[in-house]
Amino acid sequence: MEHGPLSDLQTPALLLDESRMRRNIQRLETHVSGKGALLRPHLKTAKSVDVAKVLLAGGTGPATVSTLAEAEVFAAAGVRDIVYAVGITPQKLRRVAEIREKGCDLSVILDSVEQARAVSEASRQAGKSIPALIELDCDGHRSGIDPGDPVLVEVGRILDEGAAELRGVLTHAGESYEVSGHAAHSDFAERERRAAVLAAETLRSAGLPCPVVSVGSTPTAHAAQDLTGVSEVRAGVYVFFDLFQAGIGVCTIDDIALSVLTTVVGHQREKGWIITDAGWMALSQDKGTSRQRVDQGLGLVCDASGKPYSDLIVVKANQEHGIVSVRPGSSSALPELPVGALLRILPVHACATAGNFGVYNVLPAGSGVSLKTWQRFSGW
Amino acid sequence: MEHGPLSDLQTPALLLDESRMRRNIQRLETHVSGKGALLRPHLKTAKSVDVAKVLLAGGTGPATVSTLAEAEVFAAAGVRDIVYAVGITPQKLRRVAEIREKGCDLSVILDSVEQARAVSEASRQAGKSIPALIELDCDGHRSGIDPGDPVLVEVGRILDEGAAELRGVLTHAGESYEVSGHAAHSDFAERERRAAVLAAETLRSAGLPCPVVSVGSTPTAHAAQDLTGVSEVRAGVYVFFDLFQAGIGVCTIDDIALSVLTTVVGHQREKGWIITDAGWMALSQDKGTSRQRVDQGLGLVCDASGKPYSDLIVVKANQEHGIVSVRPGSSSALPELPVGALLRILPVHACATAGNFGVYNVLPAGSGVSLKTWQRFSGW
Repeated sequence: MEHGPLSDLQTPALLLDESRMRRNIQRLETHVSGKGALLRPHLKTAKSVDVAKVLLAGGTGPATVSTLAEAEVFAAAGVRDIVYAVGITPQKLRRVAEIREKGCDLSVILDSVEQARAVSEASRQAGKSIPALIELDCDGHRSGIDPGDPVLVEVGRILDEGAAELRGVLTHAGESYEVSGHAAHSDFAERERRAAVLAAETLRSAGLPCPVVSVGSTPTAHAAQDLTGVSEVRAGVYVFFDLFQAGIGVCTIDDIALSVLTTVVGHQREKGWIITDAGWMALSQDKGTSRQRVDQGLGLVCDASGKPYSDLIVVKANQEHGIVSVRPGSSSALPELPVGALLRILPVHACATAGNFGVYNVLPAGSGVSLKTWQRFSGW
Repeated sequence: MEHGPLSDLQTPALLLDESRMRRNIQRLETHVSGKGALLRPHLKTAKSVDVAKVLLAGGTGPATVSTLAEAEVFAAAGVRDIVYAVGITPQKLRRVAEIREKGCDLSVILDSVEQARAVSEASRQAGKSIPALIELDCDGHRSGIDPGDPVLVEVGRILDEGAAELRGVLTHAGESYEVSGHAAHSDFAERERRAAVLAAETLRSAGLPCPVVSVGSTPTAHAAQDLTGVSEVRAGVYVFFDLFQAGIGVCTIDDIALSVLTTVVGHQREKGWIITDAGWMALSQDKGTSRQRVDQGLGLVCDASGKPYSDLIVVKANQEHGIVSVRPGSSSALPELPVGALLRILPVHACATAGNFGVYNVLPAGSGVSLKTWQRFSGW
């Protein structure tokens, strides 16, 4: 068996197909700019300066992050416009001010009067205004103010009249992950747009500024038909895609740019099990596709070149063991793979799988060429 | 609200209660040594040289690891006797030989003729024998040879007659996690013992050496009544314990030494949700207690001092958001916790939760004293 540069890797190892990644990035960039909005990629999936350089036009942003550690790393790497898209707490505002002090326009999000007061107070103490977006709830998924709730204007006024800066509104249709197909995702995209535009108009009618109207999730970003009134779109996992996104029709299996290289460590032949060295510590425990039409278990199994085996999935995992077997109900045969054989596992959820690794081993476009190594980071 | 040294931490952060950890370590050490066997702690849960120093008598071993990265780090820190307890592959044998070359007695495990040949060949090439334990299947959980299978002696003979070293046999009753209570765990402990002793006798009857007879899992190690014929017992998660182990009766909630410190970032009051900054990236996605009598969701919620709230659990999580709510069916009230309030989440699975962090913040025994920081590592 000839695997080229893969044979030199110690497994489990994270592989990144750069040409697929570039295709995914281009696809959404073209779609969103064609609708007249700006794309603000979410860097929580990649957590890599090397990926960010490809993803962000010119490498300076705009970008979205999920932790202040991401904000710090990307700001240090030259990203100049970042939204920290998890509700801000008083304890984090000093770090926010420090990142801003270094020349990065970092903004925060919030959905309560108490947070608006805290941002205003921190701005006063810093002697410089911290910009905040008001988070809206467009679909009951998680956080945010209902766009029709009068507290919206109250929060806006505290930001605008205090020492902070009211930068705009932001929403995320997380429930779009629960539906499948372009039409259903388009409906959620329109729900995002309407909520954000309604809130922006309400704030402006109250005499408040609302320059930024930010929406997005990977499914809605790809399916949005109309972005009138929206200034920017956020999405993250599309950079790599995964089996979950393929399961709801946002991409195909062939778009998935990430995989985990693993080695066969044993067999239980009478049970139809191939045992590998990629357990949940490598793959993650995300079983998101179990509620989809095709349950991919903990990952879809491919040969070392990336070609999926028919109906072969990771059915179970322990910390450092993955149990590979034919999908229940399938008549496919278990391939004969000796100890030492290399496999590639497509991830159920790219954010979770990538999060387990310290480097991307970037696959060359041709064959026989050596791999590039891109660092990734984690932590808070 | 006064939280002492916790107020200085950026959340989410991993907390370790050192006195609970020491109590857990002492408990198993006393039990196993009282039964006449040696304890070989599994370092995959802690992945920390500081924890290993407390855990390993004199800091030199014996120990068990789940990755060669662990073997390398602990060998460099002075551990001199390590079992790498995941089936060996040909590609990993060069690293094994290198670790042995530096003075650590690292042994490998295997359950096939092809692996035995590979270890023998690698030993021949290195000019020094690599010791191997034959993995046995005592309960159908995962890997291993059935102790009655004639291939056992065949594998043993390849190791013994070739350039490798037949060090002994090893088994792990992973299925003991699926049953609850001391009596059920004792039965699995006896199953481990019988399988290992039978295999050892079979090898010896065939004129082969079998100095090591290794058994263990956290539930069976604590419940073993009789260790006759067993030379050593392995266990890992008992160092910290978790909600899963509490759910099957191996420990109590008060024994759990690990927790995730998190901050309230928002509310959806009409839904009974408190939103925190500990999502699955901090807690892990392990929902192991969902198949137990009490489903703890993604973690049990405590106040900042570590006292559990009545029936308050993490019901759902996104990457950096945890949704805290009252357990379904409970009549407990949702506590009023403002944005900025600190909480501690007890983990469902300590190995998975700890794996998400780079440091342990070690809680002082008294109050008002500053925290210690112990490094942990990850990767392969």
